[in-house]
Amino acid sequence: YVYSRPPPWSDALPTIFVITPTYTRPVQKAELTRLANTFLHVQNLHWVVVEDSPRRTNLVSNLLEKAGLNFTHLNVETPKSLKLGLSWIPSHTPRGTLQRNLGLHWLRDSFSNTAPPEGVVYFADDDNTYSLELFEEMRYTRRVSVWPVAFVGGLRYESPKVSPAGKVVGWKTVFDPNRPFAIDMAGFAISIKLILEKPQASFKLEGVKGGYQETSLLKDLVTMDGLEPKAANCTKVLVWHTRTERPTLVNEGKRGFTDPRVEV
Amino acid sequence: YVYSRPPPWSDALPTIFVITPTYTRPVQKAELTRLANTFLHVQNLHWVVVEDSPRRTNLVSNLLEKAGLNFTHLNVETPKSLKLGLSWIPSHTPRGTLQRNLGLHWLRDSFSNTAPPEGVVYFADDDNTYSLELFEEMRYTRRVSVWPVAFVGGLRYESPKVSPAGKVVGWKTVFDPNRPFAIDMAGFAISIKLILEKPQASFKLEGVKGGYQETSLLKDLVTMDGLEPKAANCTKVLVWHTRTERPTLVNEGKRGFTDPRVEV
Repeated sequence: YVYSRPPPWSDALPTIFVITPTYTRPVQKAELTRLANTFLHVQNLHWVVVEDSPRRTNLVSNLLEKAGLNFTHLNVETPKSLKLGLSWIPSHTPRGTLQRNLGLHWLRDSFSNTAPPEGVVYFADDDNTYSLELFEEMRYTRRVSVWPVAFVGGLRYESPKVSPAGKVVGWKTVFDPNRPFAIDMAGFAISIKLILEKPQASFKLEGVKGGYQETSLLKDLVTMDGLEPKAANCTKVLVWHTRTERPTLVNEGKRGFTDPRVEV
Repeated sequence: YVYSRPPPWSDALPTIFVITPTYTRPVQKAELTRLANTFLHVQNLHWVVVEDSPRRTNLVSNLLEKAGLNFTHLNVETPKSLKLGLSWIPSHTPRGTLQRNLGLHWLRDSFSNTAPPEGVVYFADDDNTYSLELFEEMRYTRRVSVWPVAFVGGLRYESPKVSPAGKVVGWKTVFDPNRPFAIDMAGFAISIKLILEKPQASFKLEGVKGGYQETSLLKDLVTMDGLEPKAANCTKVLVWHTRTERPTLVNEGKRGFTDPRVEV
């Protein structure tokens, strides 16, 4: 018997739609397991998991069914042409772009005929680390809220620059600080209302320079003037861009094999 | 307002004492944050956090105070002599050895005059990934229970070898399968009773070959015949030996500094 208590769902609270792109690799189940353990503490969270895969995998399906979370399970495979680009030059299409766009499409589709709930959209990659406080910071976003993210751009953290009056006026970053939105994917949330008001807003697929993926969406939705700083005027770190090492499986197949029927 | 519900404490359930050695590094708070998020789902869990540090740090103290878990916060610094060994040859003292021993000492000290609770001891490093099911598998350990661990020894997983009769008869490992206990630190739990019955059992500090740290404790406590296989006779993976990449902080101090007062 495993003791699990999904947090109660309250009609009085805005919903947090978390869009997570994911792909098959040795640590996938581990990453999704600790993410689920975190999300299981957050009220009114709906997890939209989008696999980069030609079909939904049993591993992800089973994990979602067992986790006890509200979820939607989608998939779209990134075509090889986008991964490699023409003439074998990498096109720099960032991983997860098509998957995040499908998540946005699903949201717009779901609320095309019904009144949307109050709520926000957040893009949560499966290897980052999230404090529970983060979700309460974003819950009442009016348009687009922003906050610092640790371990990006070669710094301990990157942060929006906030004026004494509490307005976002720029970016505390070293890497290309003149980007229109110099912010990591984990550093903002968008109100559902705004996503539905701007049906053309999406992540761009090609010709997007490194560090401009977030800008490619946000410029369709908001100006710097409309950003809402959270996390005590962007003075607290509540999300960490952690990365998990690829495990070395050097002995697999060398002097033995593990049982392929055992899911890892 | 962050919604957090520590699981209820029940006098009818055995207690799980989790001993976690930890040390200061950029990702420490992130690691402890996701560990706390997992432990917050487990009934009757007492977290014994032991810092490798000359004093308890504010970062860890604050995190533990805020987490809402039952905890004990200890520290012991690994002496430089043990880290380097004599004549500058690394002595191979594994990280965390003194810290795990202090955790055992604290347990024996705590229950020297009072009846110990029913329960188990588990050594949980701060970078691994733990399913919630794992804790219910170990909760009713009589002496020492064992199960598979993913991503160790160069394999998808290592596992105890279990006979058709349900007895542990060896080890499914490639790296040194003839070790007396060829099992990772994350792969076993010990009953409190056994820890108290064998007050001399501890992790050995010096002259322990790679892969023999677990053996150095377990040989004082149990024989292979006394091991209890869990996780469906060791056919399920419920813990993953994940490792977190050291973040690249290449821009820190180069063309700017982040604010050192902001805790990461």
